[in-house]
Amino acid sequence: MNVAQKSQDQITPDFSTFDSIFRPKAVAIIGASNKEGSFGRLFLEGIIKAGYSPIYPIHLREKELMGLKAYASIKDVPVPIDLALLMVPYSEALKIVRECVEKEVRGVVLFTSGFGEKGEEGKQAERELAKIVAGSRTRLIGPNCNGLYSPAVKLVSLPGSLITGGVTTEAGTLSVVSQSGSLNDFLVQTLTRKNIRFNKTVSTGNECDLHAEDFLEYYGSDPNTTLIAGYLEGIKDGKRFYQLAKEISKKKPIIIWKGGMTEAGARSAVAHTGALAGSSVIWETMFKQAGIINPNSFEEMVDCILAFSWTGIPKGRRIAILSSMGGTNIGTTDNCIRAGLEMAKLTDQTKERLNQLLPGAGTSASNPLDVGVGGMMNPKVFAEGMKIITEDENVDMLMLVADPDAPLSIPSIIEAIPSIKKPVTVSIFDMLDLTESHYRKFLEHRIPVFHEPKRAVAALAKMCEYADYLKQYK
Amino acid sequence: MNVAQKSQDQITPDFSTFDSIFRPKAVAIIGASNKEGSFGRLFLEGIIKAGYSPIYPIHLREKELMGLKAYASIKDVPVPIDLALLMVPYSEALKIVRECVEKEVRGVVLFTSGFGEKGEEGKQAERELAKIVAGSRTRLIGPNCNGLYSPAVKLVSLPGSLITGGVTTEAGTLSVVSQSGSLNDFLVQTLTRKNIRFNKTVSTGNECDLHAEDFLEYYGSDPNTTLIAGYLEGIKDGKRFYQLAKEISKKKPIIIWKGGMTEAGARSAVAHTGALAGSSVIWETMFKQAGIINPNSFEEMVDCILAFSWTGIPKGRRIAILSSMGGTNIGTTDNCIRAGLEMAKLTDQTKERLNQLLPGAGTSASNPLDVGVGGMMNPKVFAEGMKIITEDENVDMLMLVADPDAPLSIPSIIEAIPSIKKPVTVSIFDMLDLTESHYRKFLEHRIPVFHEPKRAVAALAKMCEYADYLKQYK
Repeated sequence: MNVAQKSQDQITPDFSTFDSIFRPKAVAIIGASNKEGSFGRLFLEGIIKAGYSPIYPIHLREKELMGLKAYASIKDVPVPIDLALLMVPYSEALKIVRECVEKEVRGVVLFTSGFGEKGEEGKQAERELAKIVAGSRTRLIGPNCNGLYSPAVKLVSLPGSLITGGVTTEAGTLSVVSQSGSLNDFLVQTLTRKNIRFNKTVSTGNECDLHAEDFLEYYGSDPNTTLIAGYLEGIKDGKRFYQLAKEISKKKPIIIWKGGMTEAGARSAVAHTGALAGSSVIWETMFKQAGIINPNSFEEMVDCILAFSWTGIPKGRRIAILSSMGGTNIGTTDNCIRAGLEMAKLTDQTKERLNQLLPGAGTSASNPLDVGVGGMMNPKVFAEGMKIITEDENVDMLMLVADPDAPLSIPSIIEAIPSIKKPVTVSIFDMLDLTESHYRKFLEHRIPVFHEPKRAVAALAKMCEYADYLKQYK
Repeated sequence: MNVAQKSQDQITPDFSTFDSIFRPKAVAIIGASNKEGSFGRLFLEGIIKAGYSPIYPIHLREKELMGLKAYASIKDVPVPIDLALLMVPYSEALKIVRECVEKEVRGVVLFTSGFGEKGEEGKQAERELAKIVAGSRTRLIGPNCNGLYSPAVKLVSLPGSLITGGVTTEAGTLSVVSQSGSLNDFLVQTLTRKNIRFNKTVSTGNECDLHAEDFLEYYGSDPNTTLIAGYLEGIKDGKRFYQLAKEISKKKPIIIWKGGMTEAGARSAVAHTGALAGSSVIWETMFKQAGIINPNSFEEMVDCILAFSWTGIPKGRRIAILSSMGGTNIGTTDNCIRAGLEMAKLTDQTKERLNQLLPGAGTSASNPLDVGVGGMMNPKVFAEGMKIITEDENVDMLMLVADPDAPLSIPSIIEAIPSIKKPVTVSIFDMLDLTESHYRKFLEHRIPVFHEPKRAVAALAKMCEYADYLKQYK
């Protein structure tokens, strides 16, 4: 079945190829090596260590690699292979992909670079690759990619994640498709450390066969995926992508960082994955109409993923701010307004309750709320203030700015948040040793936390945009 | 001498009042206390611990506080007092300021809040305070502030800094004026941990006597201050501020975050320090014409301070990007263009040198430069690449995106940077345990480092704006 040619009207697509790719019964590694310091060894070692089994290393001469029996060719392997990872020289790539097709491997990941991103010769080779797999039982990911991550089966082929060992085989519900391999890798490493768990991730590179759209469709129908994130440079079938995203985003948020939105960025995208990046206006319009959340940097993408993973969508744009820092409250109010949020007008009843909670001087029972020194001296003030404010019918969401000087307030804030029914984000300034452990504590408790209020504002504003998109379909 | 009424034409202002405030020969603490858990105790204890001497605690009944002889009134102290810190109830404030005037104290810091920010009665009290000090030898800072930090004389009166102990008495060349006390405090705590050292900082609160403008003027003429940063909500004498800033910024960069730039933000500024924030268009025009660098969040302010402290000003807007991450390179190129930078066009000679350095596949010898897996496998590639690129005559500045998966490259990058004559910034993603020690290492070596490329771009773009301002006067 050629997924790329599938009709949009098909109601129940056959996703067995993708199931074989992400939950393979057997994996071959072609280009595996024993040689110290080689990429083939690093990979083989890392993949074994991550825990996937059974692995079949392929090596022309060696009979055994890292304790596993090696085969001279994939065609010699005595069992069916669902997934083959190819770390082979450019000159060998076509021949070996052909062998994979003959072996009826379901998915081939071609890590090798130097194809379309280098010029016309490489583009021609990509067209050859597409022809080799066309009509066969084999689908190709890449070239110029770095593979996938499927924690449920302990499969990790991301080089950075293998080297630094910062990945887990605990599965979550976030799935990622990235045209950049390194970005896929860094997203896994960053978010894993921030306590986000993945369901599946893949980097698609130059996309000579399987495209980002194909994975978007698969994730859309995947019951284990509740949130989709992606990094794109260009899309081969824009219309299909748009139609898919428009439908999927009604059920699952889609967060996409698009590289190559300026002319200079688009030129470098060609050198990176050979993608034609297209006009930024078209992309922005498309994102808006398809309900796609569109951060414009790595950090903003990470921030959006934290917010969408761990809080509900706000019902409206009315935000309340609670902190012990008058100055940043004013600037944060500015940033809320600039981002299209509204400052919630607290009811008289809420103000009265807050005035009872707070010592009179140095605080102002309004929004933004500055609990002043009172918050530093009494660890319960933040937690109580949060409860009072979020019970106000005029408040849709709350941004708490935690006080690094009031460490005793952190446990009571963490304890209070789960019982609050409205979205709450926390900000805490990056003061290295003073705040690192607090920052981690919030992440451990799955509370969206940011190193400054402005970043929380940006993520909340994206949630509001998404809420508006959903309202059209209610 | 009334500084606020000083003429702009005065060439050599008498700054002796400010010298007495920041380098006092003796300090009195009025409102000091023995009582466990009280603010007066926390302060006294913290100030003693920070190392300033001699301190004269004032207490109505106690004869001794924390081992120091206490006096019932400041008028009983047998030596002249340069600086008095007042942590007294609102109802006592006027009386005690009067006593300070009688004692001819040079500077009085009135921490007490509940004045103009609370309404008309408080405003009236502020006018009384101004009258009390008018024409006397005494100048007043505050009310509703948290004092100052003058490391050269081991004087720290910032409550957060005293509690968390993260301040040093090592002096640097950055001086700060902030209308918000907490912001002053957090800036000191954050930047100290990032290896920036201060010369002087002050929070001016409601400014019933001394204004932010006065400190701006003082810092402008202060030979120990090379960089000025500030947080403002409103300015009493806008024309004077503008004229001062326009002159000072020709010699020293001035970085100002302005709160209350939106209507909602301006409303909350009134509740915070009673300031009238004014129209954002007027402020933005003024900042531009006076050569003031204008970040719009705490993090951006901190980022600008790192960049202005540790790199030279770029000669032009042509930037080069070096990383091992193709994906973020494209998006970062977008963010450079959006911020008004230009992508440098590398000469053929540079490209040839880069091609010799880099393995052929997976990299593209252009700008942005992706050193790919080569950078991960060979720790010298980043350092060599940086040298080659910055030797290109078409490159004004370099942004390096460090690879968290290539920790061995970090020492050679750190070693290479000091010999590079053009501005270099480093970005490294915030991957918690994986990157925290690298991040610290860059800070230790006074290399401007950011948790993502977009933040480096923002800081560099501000430097370019400042360079353009300076060009007018060459």
